[in-house]
Amino acid sequence: MQETHIALAHGNGGRWMRELIDEIFAKHLKNDVQTDAAPLILENKDWLITTDGFTVQPLEFNGGNIGTLAVHGTVNDLAVSGAIPRFLTLNAFIEEGLEIAQLDHFILSLAETAKECKVQIVAGDTKVLRRGEGGGLYLATTGLGEKITGISLGLSQIKSGDKILVSGSVGDHGIAVMLAREQFGLKGDLKSDCANVFPLTNSIISLKGLRFMRDPTRGGLATVTHEIARATNLGIRLFQNNIPIRSPVQSVCEMLGYDPLYLACEGRVVAILSSEDAETALQIWRNHPQGQDAAIIGEISDKEKHVIIQTHLGGERFLEELEDDPLPRIC
Amino acid sequence: MQETHIALAHGNGGRWMRELIDEIFAKHLKNDVQTDAAPLILENKDWLITTDGFTVQPLEFNGGNIGTLAVHGTVNDLAVSGAIPRFLTLNAFIEEGLEIAQLDHFILSLAETAKECKVQIVAGDTKVLRRGEGGGLYLATTGLGEKITGISLGLSQIKSGDKILVSGSVGDHGIAVMLAREQFGLKGDLKSDCANVFPLTNSIISLKGLRFMRDPTRGGLATVTHEIARATNLGIRLFQNNIPIRSPVQSVCEMLGYDPLYLACEGRVVAILSSEDAETALQIWRNHPQGQDAAIIGEISDKEKHVIIQTHLGGERFLEELEDDPLPRIC
Repeated sequence: MQETHIALAHGNGGRWMRELIDEIFAKHLKNDVQTDAAPLILENKDWLITTDGFTVQPLEFNGGNIGTLAVHGTVNDLAVSGAIPRFLTLNAFIEEGLEIAQLDHFILSLAETAKECKVQIVAGDTKVLRRGEGGGLYLATTGLGEKITGISLGLSQIKSGDKILVSGSVGDHGIAVMLAREQFGLKGDLKSDCANVFPLTNSIISLKGLRFMRDPTRGGLATVTHEIARATNLGIRLFQNNIPIRSPVQSVCEMLGYDPLYLACEGRVVAILSSEDAETALQIWRNHPQGQDAAIIGEISDKEKHVIIQTHLGGERFLEELEDDPLPRIC
Repeated sequence: MQETHIALAHGNGGRWMRELIDEIFAKHLKNDVQTDAAPLILENKDWLITTDGFTVQPLEFNGGNIGTLAVHGTVNDLAVSGAIPRFLTLNAFIEEGLEIAQLDHFILSLAETAKECKVQIVAGDTKVLRRGEGGGLYLATTGLGEKITGISLGLSQIKSGDKILVSGSVGDHGIAVMLAREQFGLKGDLKSDCANVFPLTNSIISLKGLRFMRDPTRGGLATVTHEIARATNLGIRLFQNNIPIRSPVQSVCEMLGYDPLYLACEGRVVAILSSEDAETALQIWRNHPQGQDAAIIGEISDKEKHVIIQTHLGGERFLEELEDDPLPRIC
C-alpha cells in the first residue's frame, strides 16, 4: 500500500480495499477477513451475544484508544452478564483522509487487546465514509461469550436489603477523554479506567448471593442505579462518602460543573449482592489488582421508590435520571 | 418521546436514549435491546458468522432503504456461504438532526425485512453522532447462520472447466441508488435488486457440482471474478453477450461512463458449478421467481491467468481489477 491517507477507493471493493484489508486488518488480526462468513467453533454450551458501537473523540486518550475500547466495551458486557468472552466481530467505518499510520496503530491496539482478553476476532468489515463525515473512525464489535453454568444473574434476582458494590473509582474514563480534547485548557496525568473486567467478574461469580452485575458506561453509575430502580420497583440509597472518586476527577468536575456519577467508566463493575456475600465480594476485590478501591456504596430498599443519595454532610437528595445531555459526547 | 429530531441527548444513556430505544427499536424489533447480553439458543450444529456495515446515500432508493439493505446484506453473506440465516445483531450510528419519523421508518423496514428473511434480531446498540458527521444513519449487522450439512463450498473447490452463473441482471442496485441522488438530473423507475437470496442459494445447494457462491456487492461482478482468479490461480472467460443487464442500466451507464460489471448488486448470486450441474442450476433458477433472468455467463479455464471478457463483437479484452474509485460511494 503506497498511500499515506485513506481515500474513498479504499472502500470500493477493488485493489485498494484488498490491500488495506491485507496490510492492516488481516495482518494484525491474523485472520482472513475477506470471506463472506467464517466458521464458528461453538461447543454445546449456552451462549450470550452482545453488540456495541464506539465513537470516542478524540480517538486516543490517556489509558487507551478507540481500538482498546472497542474490545473492552463488548468483552465487559459479556463479563458482567456472567459469560466468558470468546469471539468478536469487527466493523470499521473509516473516514476518508484518516492517516493510514493512525488506523494501523488503532487496529494493532485492538488486536493486542483482544489477545489480552483471550477473544478471537472471527469476522470483519470495513466501509469508507466521505471526508467530513465519520469523526476519523467509528468501530462496532459484536461479541459471543460462553455462559458460565450454575449461576443466575438478572435484575429480577435483586431483593430489598441487597448491597451495591463498585469495583473502583468512577468517572476516570469520562474525565480522561475530556482532558484529551484539550478544549478546556486543562492537562493532567489522569488515566482512563478502560480495562477488561472479566477477571473481576469471574472472581466473584461463584458467590451464591451475587444477583446482578453491570458496567457503568454511558450515563455512569447514576444511570445503572436508575435502571435497577425502574426494573425492580425498589428504591436505592447511595452513600456519597463511600463512592470512590479520584481527587483529580473531583477537581475537574467541580471546575466544569459535572457530576462524576454520570460520567462513563470503561473498566469498572457495579455488582448487587446479598448483604452476607457483599462483604466477601468486597474482600475479594480489594485483594485483586483491579479492585483495590472497591467499596460498598449503597443498598436496595423497599422503603423508597427512587434513587436517593446521602450526601457528605448527612443530608439526602434525589439522584435524578440523566436528561438532556450535560456532557460532550465521550463514548 | 416528544422530540421530532435526533439530539445528542438521545445517545447519552439517560431518559431520552431509553425512550428512543423503547419507542422505536424495541417496539419494531419486539425485543428488549437494553440488556447487556442476550441469550442465544444455538442447537448443536455448525455455525457461520459474518458482519457488514451499511452507509448508503441516499438512505432511501427505489426498491429499498438502508434498513432493508442492512438485513439483506448480512443474510445474503450467510446464504452464499451455505448457511441458513438465523440471528442478527444491529448497530445504529444515528446523526444528530435526523428526523425521528425517518428513523422510525427505516427501523420498521428493517424489522419487516428480518421477519421476511426469518432471522431474529437478538441484540442491538445505538450511538448518536454529532451533526455534520454520520450521513444521517449508518448501520452494521452481524449475522449467525446454521451451516447446511453435507456440502462443501469454497474457492478451493473450483476447477478448470467449471461454469459461472449469475442469478439475474447486474448493476440494478448501483444505478437505482445513483438515480435516487438526483444529482445527474436523471429519473427512472429502475428498482434496486435488493432482496434475500437465501431462496436462490437454497434451491441449488444440494447439487453435487456446486463449488462456490458469492453475492456481487461492492465492486460488482468484476470484483468477484478477480477474487476467484486470484484465489484459484485459474483464468476466467466471461461472455459479454450472456451477461444480463437491463436496458435502463445499460443506458445510464453509457451516459455516465460507468461499466455495469463494477456496479453493486444486493440481491444476486454468482455461482460456480461443474459443467454438468450448471445447466441443472440454470433451469432451477429460471423457474424461480427471483431467477428468471439467470444465465451462464462464463467459465473457469486453466489456459489463461486473467479475467478475459469476450465482447459483443467477438473480440476479447482483459477485465481489469477495480482500482481508484470510478464511482460515487453507493454501499
